[in-house]
Amino acid sequence: MGGKVPEAVVSGRGAARLRAGHPWVYRSDVLRAGGEAGDVVRVEDRRGRFLGYAFYNPRSEITLRVAERREGVKIGGEWFYGRLRAALEYRAGLGMDGDACRLLHAEADGVPGLVADRYGDYVVLQVGSAAVERRLEMVSDALEELLSPAGVLLRGDAGSRRREGLRRTVAVLRGRVPETVVVREGPVRYRVALWRGQKTGAFLDQRENRLAAGRYARGRVLDVFSYTGGFALHAARRAEHVEAVDSSGAALEAARENARLNRLSNLSFTEANVFDLLRARSDAGEVYDAVILDPPAFARTRRDLPRASRAYKEINLRAMKLLAPGGILITCSCSYHFSREAMEEMLRSAAADAGRSLRVREWRGQAPDHPEVLNIPETRYLKCAVLERLA
Amino acid sequence: MGGKVPEAVVSGRGAARLRAGHPWVYRSDVLRAGGEAGDVVRVEDRRGRFLGYAFYNPRSEITLRVAERREGVKIGGEWFYGRLRAALEYRAGLGMDGDACRLLHAEADGVPGLVADRYGDYVVLQVGSAAVERRLEMVSDALEELLSPAGVLLRGDAGSRRREGLRRTVAVLRGRVPETVVVREGPVRYRVALWRGQKTGAFLDQRENRLAAGRYARGRVLDVFSYTGGFALHAARRAEHVEAVDSSGAALEAARENARLNRLSNLSFTEANVFDLLRARSDAGEVYDAVILDPPAFARTRRDLPRASRAYKEINLRAMKLLAPGGILITCSCSYHFSREAMEEMLRSAAADAGRSLRVREWRGQAPDHPEVLNIPETRYLKCAVLERLA
Repeated sequence: MGGKVPEAVVSGRGAARLRAGHPWVYRSDVLRAGGEAGDVVRVEDRRGRFLGYAFYNPRSEITLRVAERREGVKIGGEWFYGRLRAALEYRAGLGMDGDACRLLHAEADGVPGLVADRYGDYVVLQVGSAAVERRLEMVSDALEELLSPAGVLLRGDAGSRRREGLRRTVAVLRGRVPETVVVREGPVRYRVALWRGQKTGAFLDQRENRLAAGRYARGRVLDVFSYTGGFALHAARRAEHVEAVDSSGAALEAARENARLNRLSNLSFTEANVFDLLRARSDAGEVYDAVILDPPAFARTRRDLPRASRAYKEINLRAMKLLAPGGILITCSCSYHFSREAMEEMLRSAAADAGRSLRVREWRGQAPDHPEVLNIPETRYLKCAVLERLA
Repeated sequence: MGGKVPEAVVSGRGAARLRAGHPWVYRSDVLRAGGEAGDVVRVEDRRGRFLGYAFYNPRSEITLRVAERREGVKIGGEWFYGRLRAALEYRAGLGMDGDACRLLHAEADGVPGLVADRYGDYVVLQVGSAAVERRLEMVSDALEELLSPAGVLLRGDAGSRRREGLRRTVAVLRGRVPETVVVREGPVRYRVALWRGQKTGAFLDQRENRLAAGRYARGRVLDVFSYTGGFALHAARRAEHVEAVDSSGAALEAARENARLNRLSNLSFTEANVFDLLRARSDAGEVYDAVILDPPAFARTRRDLPRASRAYKEINLRAMKLLAPGGILITCSCSYHFSREAMEEMLRSAAADAGRSLRVREWRGQAPDHPEVLNIPETRYLKCAVLERLA
C-alpha cells in the first residue's frame, strides 16, 4: 500500500487484445511481471505505453485481468465503492420485480473475478481472483455502506477457484447468514439454500425466463430438469397442472416445499431420468400444452460439443413431439460452448425430425442483471427460446 | 371450384423438405404438376403419399408453397376466415400498444404469400402469390367479417411480384382508402403514406425497437437513416435534443411534420450522406448520449455480403466513437443474408477498432406480430442490438 505499483509488460498480441476492449491477458502474452499473486499491477506494452491496471495472478492461465484503464486511479476501497455504486444504479434502472438479483456481474460491472448476489437481506459473493480475495474487506465495506446487508457470505467453493490457486472456503464475512432464506421473484416465493445451493444459492440468470414461463403457461405443463421448481412454480400459477421432473429427490423435496410456500396444489413431482421419461411419454402419445426444458450445461468444454449437441437434440425433439397444436416449448441452454447459432441449428434439426412446424415467440437470454460484454464473448452463455407448435 | 384438385408430385428431396416443416418446394423438386398458376394443388410424394395442399405457380422459382397439411380441408373462404381469425387472436394476446400492426404475416400465420397490415381503420395487403391474388375476394370478405375496416388497399408494387408473374398494381379492394392516415404507436403519433410509403406504408417490424429507443434515450441523441422519424420521435420524448439525419429531403419533411403532430420541438433535421456525416462528426470529436442506426438492407443478396459487412462496420465503428461514457448505441440490420452471428462479429470487430468496451443491454429482433418460423430460416431478418459504452 502506498508503495510503487508493480509492473507487467505484455506482448504485441496481448496489447492488441487489451486495446480491443478485452480485459484478459493469457500467460503466454505476459513478457515479464513484478509482484505476486493478488497484486494490482500496472500493465504496459513493450514500448512502455500504459494499458491499464490489472489483477495479477501468475498461477492462473488468465494471468492479468485489467480492472481499470484510467491512468493514476488507485484500486482501493474508494474504487470498489464506486464500482459497486454504479452496479447498483444500473440494477435500479432495470425495474426488476423481486428481492433476489445479481448486484455485480464481474467484468460487465468492471470488477473481474467478483460476483455479488442479493437474496433478501443477505449478500453472497463468488470470488475467482486472488486480487479480489485479498481485498474482500474493501468489498464488504462497500456493501455495508451502500446496502447494509444483514450478512455477507463468501461462497468460495466453485471448482474454478483451483485454477486461480484459491482454496475452497465458505465463510461469513459480515453479520450472520442463515442456512436458507425465502426470496420473492415476481408473484412467486421460493427458498434459497445460501450455503449449499448451486452457484450462490439459485440460478438468478434465469429469473426473467421463469417470469416469461409464467406468462406462457396454461393447461397441462411438463417441466423437466426442474431442480427446486423455479420454472414449475411460475408455470403453476396459470396452468391447470404442472408435473416437475428431476433426477434428484432432494431437489424435488425442496420444490415440493416451495409449492407449499406458494399455496399451490396443482403440481406433481416425479423423480426420473429425464431422457427416459421424455422418450416414454412421447412413445405413449402423451400431449402437453407447454413443456419446459432447462437442462444443466451439457457442454462444459469444447470437446463435449458433439455429444452435447446430440443430447440437446434428443430432449428437444421429444419435447416437440409432446406439444399439442398451439403448445409452447420453453427451451434453454446454459453452455457457453454451445453457441446461439448452434442452438438454433439444433432446434431446426429437431423440428425437422419431429415433423413439427414451430413459430418463434421469443429468443431470450440471461437476465439483464447478468449483462454480457460485447468484447468478451465468454460473458454470453444463456440461451432461451420460446417456440409455439403451429397447427 | 368443386372439381377435382390438380395434383403435383415432388422429388424425395422436396418431400423431405416438406416433412421437415418447411413449406416451400423449388421448381427443380417438382417432378410433375397439373393445373395452372394460382391453382391450389394436392402435393404427393412419388409413392402417392399425401403431403399437403399448396399454392402452385410454375412461373415462380418457389413453385409450390404448402398452405394446408390436413387432408380433405378445402382452401376457400372459410379457410381464409379461419386463418385470419387465428392470426387476430394471436395479436390480441401480444398486448401491443397502438393502432398499427401486422395482422397476418404470411407463412408464420399459415398463409404463404399474404401480408396484411392494419393502420387505424384501414388494412393494406401485400400479395406475393398468384393463388392468393386469385382469392383476394375471400381475403377481403374475411377482413370485413372480422374487422369491418373502412377500406382495404392492395399494395401490389413490390419488385418481388415480378418473380411470381404478378403485375404491378395498387388498388382499393374495399371501401375507401386515403392517401395518408395518422396512427398511434405507444405515446407517439405519426403519419403513414398508405399508397406510396415503403412496404405497406411503414416499417412496422421496428415498432417494439422504436418503443425501446424511447426508453433508452436521454441527453443528446443522433438518429441516422431516420426516414420519416420513427425512432427520432420516440427518442425525443425523453432526450434533450434529437438530430435526425437522412439523405432524403422528402423523408425529412415528413419527419418534420410528424414532430409537429407530436408537439415536439427538440428535434432538428439534417439532410446528408450518413457515412460522410458520421465520419465528420467523429473526426470533430462530437459526443452523444445515444446514437441510433437503422440503415436500409446493405446486403440484398449473398453476393453483397463482403461490401455490406464493411459498410455496417464503418457506421457502427463511427457511432461507437461518438458515444459518451454510459452512452447507448441502438443498432439494427434488416438484411436476411447478414446473419445474427455475422452482426455480432461485426459489432465486436467495430468495438475493437474503436477501442470501446460495450455492455450488451439487449439483443432484439423483429416485433412479435412479425414472428419467424423456426423451420424457415428466411423468416428471420431483423436484428437490433442495444449497447452501452462502459466508462
